[in-house]
Amino acid sequence: MRIDVSFSSNHLDELQLRDRNVVVVDVLRASTTVATALANGSREIIPVASIESAVKISGSLFGEVTLRGGERNGKIIEGFNLGNSPREYTEATVRGKSIIFCTTNGSVAMSRSRYARRLVVGGFVNMSAVVNFIKEEQSDFLIICAGKSNGLRSFSIEDAVCAGMMISELTKDKGQDVELTDSSRAAIALFKTFGRSILKMLKTSDHGQYLEEIGMGEDLKICAEIDSIPVLPFQQGTVIKLRRDSGSADATTEPQAAVNV
Amino acid sequence: MRIDVSFSSNHLDELQLRDRNVVVVDVLRASTTVATALANGSREIIPVASIESAVKISGSLFGEVTLRGGERNGKIIEGFNLGNSPREYTEATVRGKSIIFCTTNGSVAMSRSRYARRLVVGGFVNMSAVVNFIKEEQSDFLIICAGKSNGLRSFSIEDAVCAGMMISELTKDKGQDVELTDSSRAAIALFKTFGRSILKMLKTSDHGQYLEEIGMGEDLKICAEIDSIPVLPFQQGTVIKLRRDSGSADATTEPQAAVNV
Repeated sequence: MRIDVSFSSNHLDELQLRDRNVVVVDVLRASTTVATALANGSREIIPVASIESAVKISGSLFGEVTLRGGERNGKIIEGFNLGNSPREYTEATVRGKSIIFCTTNGSVAMSRSRYARRLVVGGFVNMSAVVNFIKEEQSDFLIICAGKSNGLRSFSIEDAVCAGMMISELTKDKGQDVELTDSSRAAIALFKTFGRSILKMLKTSDHGQYLEEIGMGEDLKICAEIDSIPVLPFQQGTVIKLRRDSGSADATTEPQAAVNV
Repeated sequence: MRIDVSFSSNHLDELQLRDRNVVVVDVLRASTTVATALANGSREIIPVASIESAVKISGSLFGEVTLRGGERNGKIIEGFNLGNSPREYTEATVRGKSIIFCTTNGSVAMSRSRYARRLVVGGFVNMSAVVNFIKEEQSDFLIICAGKSNGLRSFSIEDAVCAGMMISELTKDKGQDVELTDSSRAAIALFKTFGRSILKMLKTSDHGQYLEEIGMGEDLKICAEIDSIPVLPFQQGTVIKLRRDSGSADATTEPQAAVNV
């Protein structure tokens, strides 16, 4: 199987991603937040690419069972129920709820991947769940680093290092026949260079520094913990749910033990 | 000064690059070919983004002093005078000529950078010329890796490693106050990992392997030689010429010694 990496999602469109197998990686923080919400019993995540879409969709859903979550410049969007910090997505808040999810990069990358054959969401917190899923599938995968969408800068070191760790884990298993590309070999090299301390890497990253500046530094620790939220957010239809056999039986009926972050 | 890297040029547009200082890097092979052509006495390079533009522009220029050069899938474009191998751009062929230049990635990145404040073209072959120019300017620079423009894959390891070498050279000089970003730190790490043998890195790269497949393997050796063509291709108006004080006095009147590649 060929494992490729896209270091940003800016240049990708829905048609290019149609019928592909995709892992969307947005370590800070969309991947971590989606995993947390689903592990804490959220019924489903509905990723959208814009605030306009979020407002439009939420108009047709029942207020009591629907929440709007997301950020602009790292901060909660006006009129939304939740921001993009995993600490906000507690069991008390999200259990049984559908969450319309709108972030600057992560939810956009998920939304662009909506016609993928398989779409899973990955970060450090669910590393093994993603790696095991790819091993099961035994198909070509594209790991999409959500990166940054604003302006000239599209590369995020934390997403590249996370992709590199996924591929390193895959290639560690000698039974796997993994074909690499320029970008997947680069991702492995970046993981080897920066992966010794994930938390330190996050703290020195452009976006990690920004999050510390706006008082969200606590989130970095949560996003750095490998396999702390061992679930697999998995697209079914147009929403992202827990994969049935990833940890719990079915999040919508039998939520697994809450993750306290 | 802040040094940033864009690992592909797909998501960039002319307005974003307006008034920026830009180095366009396309190691295989546009950067190397442009440097070779100018060192061998070509009057100017006119980079264009499409074959249509090349045809349109060449219609208004005199045939005797104008050549069309470029490639699609690594091969010469039908009706063009030259492909994209530096070996074709000999003194006998290019001296005194304007070259309309159309490649899949490199000339597109140059064309998108046309409104930059400064635009220079860099590769391994003119590493020191580029690094010295940035040191002289003492301004923020964006190194644009031309990468790949077709389909999902936009990252080219050889361009990233070359950008990393440029930044490593800059930061080596303790007198330089260089501010790094996620992407420039990643580029340095990739240079440290893959830069020990540039030729080996080119031979194992996706595009290097393709060039060997189509019989262009000789070009890899030329593109790998550090400082072998010590000139600075520099945008003046809408064309790329030799910078007046980079090696020779002025390429159009006093061409410097021909580079035999």
